[in-house]
Amino acid sequence: MTRPAQPTARYDADALDSFCRAVFLAAGADEATANAATRAMMHGSRLGVDSHGVRLLGHYVATMTQGRVNPRPTPRILSEFGAVATLDADNAHGALGAYRAQEKAVELAGRFGIGAVAIRNNSHFGPAGAFALAAAETGCIGMAFCNSDSFMRLHDGAERFHGTNPIAIAVPVKDGDPWLFDMATSAIPYNRVQLYRSLGIPLPEATASDPQGHNTTDPERAEMLAPLGGEFGFKGAGLAGFVEILSAVLTGMKLSFEILPMPGPDLSTPRGMGAFVMAIRPEAFLPQESFQDNMARYLAALRGSQAVPGRTVMAPGDREWAEAERRRTLGIPIDQTTVDSFNELAHAYGIPTPVPAASPP
Amino acid sequence: MTRPAQPTARYDADALDSFCRAVFLAAGADEATANAATRAMMHGSRLGVDSHGVRLLGHYVATMTQGRVNPRPTPRILSEFGAVATLDADNAHGALGAYRAQEKAVELAGRFGIGAVAIRNNSHFGPAGAFALAAAETGCIGMAFCNSDSFMRLHDGAERFHGTNPIAIAVPVKDGDPWLFDMATSAIPYNRVQLYRSLGIPLPEATASDPQGHNTTDPERAEMLAPLGGEFGFKGAGLAGFVEILSAVLTGMKLSFEILPMPGPDLSTPRGMGAFVMAIRPEAFLPQESFQDNMARYLAALRGSQAVPGRTVMAPGDREWAEAERRRTLGIPIDQTTVDSFNELAHAYGIPTPVPAASPP
Repeated sequence: MTRPAQPTARYDADALDSFCRAVFLAAGADEATANAATRAMMHGSRLGVDSHGVRLLGHYVATMTQGRVNPRPTPRILSEFGAVATLDADNAHGALGAYRAQEKAVELAGRFGIGAVAIRNNSHFGPAGAFALAAAETGCIGMAFCNSDSFMRLHDGAERFHGTNPIAIAVPVKDGDPWLFDMATSAIPYNRVQLYRSLGIPLPEATASDPQGHNTTDPERAEMLAPLGGEFGFKGAGLAGFVEILSAVLTGMKLSFEILPMPGPDLSTPRGMGAFVMAIRPEAFLPQESFQDNMARYLAALRGSQAVPGRTVMAPGDREWAEAERRRTLGIPIDQTTVDSFNELAHAYGIPTPVPAASPP
Repeated sequence: MTRPAQPTARYDADALDSFCRAVFLAAGADEATANAATRAMMHGSRLGVDSHGVRLLGHYVATMTQGRVNPRPTPRILSEFGAVATLDADNAHGALGAYRAQEKAVELAGRFGIGAVAIRNNSHFGPAGAFALAAAETGCIGMAFCNSDSFMRLHDGAERFHGTNPIAIAVPVKDGDPWLFDMATSAIPYNRVQLYRSLGIPLPEATASDPQGHNTTDPERAEMLAPLGGEFGFKGAGLAGFVEILSAVLTGMKLSFEILPMPGPDLSTPRGMGAFVMAIRPEAFLPQESFQDNMARYLAALRGSQAVPGRTVMAPGDREWAEAERRRTLGIPIDQTTVDSFNELAHAYGIPTPVPAASPP
């Protein structure tokens, strides 16, 4: 049983960013790959989505050196029709494929008001929100979808079928951080099950199932995740299905249950994953200023909405942007397991390890 | 306390369809309005979504005769940019605005691979799935979104904020009924609360809240709906927010909490509702036959996935299509309240009431 790793040190974002890039380059990745993979991991580490943060550096390097991920890929547009395109990522790091596709979607949205790009031959892309955000940073409403290896049962199902199949959406906000929504369509992520196992505490109700598909709160008996919605899990399963259709059916890539497990042991065979991104340019529908005013009015009403005593009502992303601000000041907490892996990578590639910015509180 | 209405008679779909059209025309609606409103209601009545079925006929006639809904509207495209457009529905019946917008989205998808249409000055459009399905019937992946008057609290919220803000998606299936997904982003619909009140039985956990925003299973104390997801209600609230942004922010139409309540008492003021539809043409991404094969393979795997003993795994829409088949054979069950309202309408407009097809089982 693994104990949950405790944060032992905090690092400046720039130091982590430079270290990750240097390691990727030293491991044989080209600049584009190093930049995209680092940018996506830093999205996770800056915003507090640590499961998809820099802890993945060692894993990603292994996938590049062992053959699963092409460290010097040549992604190319396979086909284009009007406002949509299909990108072959050439087994790139998933973040490279997704950023490239979103750039293309944004370009298409500039010409057609909306753009959608299906991605073939991609790999794990990390935090879906990063690619929705990339569109929002250009003034578009951005979306990103990806299926993944099976963890989630269907509604009334008794085996793993869909992945945690995330949906991410970002909406630009004038003079503020984007509205940023990044959800797994499962009730909880699988690493939550692992964490609760380590802590020896029960899972929330209706979030995981035993091997017969019956809900269990015992993390030791949890074999698969439940779809979002508990008794109304047909909703989470349906949303996961939509992600599957966009990512796998519309691309001809692998269905969730066909995708090789992320952690291995096989790190040499490309995973053949699909994904899908979309961008909408608000000014194609109404004047930019009207859109910005409407969004500001909506967010002000939402944040001013009455809360349960002792709680706070937040817009999607508010929690993450607040954490990003905290981390800008205090540094990014890194657990000891990840520090150890940094030391190994630094040693292997002859690169200085990043220096902690401050002691943990 | 109202008792739940029991089905008292079954009617042939064609008889109901003809009756609804005749009533609308007699009440002053033009052909397009009568056709669209009837088609949407019949979607509900055929597929077993009776809350959005022909029971709404009397309500819709009242909105048309009292001024809320324009019975002879002139919907027009306000603006068009590439693959997107904005439609002003001229306070039409919501189904007319939504079908017109989806026709435009399908046309745009034919030219650009994808099409999106924002709808302004619309009204209650009925079952969202009907408009997603309209795109799927042309071979497109269809989507429909609409906000509605406030029923749902935010995550950690203690007042009604969003409507039940549905998301509907339909995907064409070769030689089969479309994959059809139509979900409220609230945990349950509000009419479920009313039904459970009538039956005097407790609500499912974490689906509704008391006036302080605390979850309650007592339907008498339920003042608002919870967002989908229970403890993870930020997911349902975020999805509802996305629907709100597409429907209200991108159109400049009313936010949910500004929309006049559907049942009145004011049935004379237009509701100023927005909505949003989208269509994607799969052949813009891959050959049609590949898409059809991939979809068939996915659905076969899904329907063959292991189920909890005694349960069945279903694809979105399977339950509804089975019910539609049952109703094709047995007729559509209509409750006594609706039969009474049919009799009133028939009398008022000098139209014969539909004749029941068979006695109830």
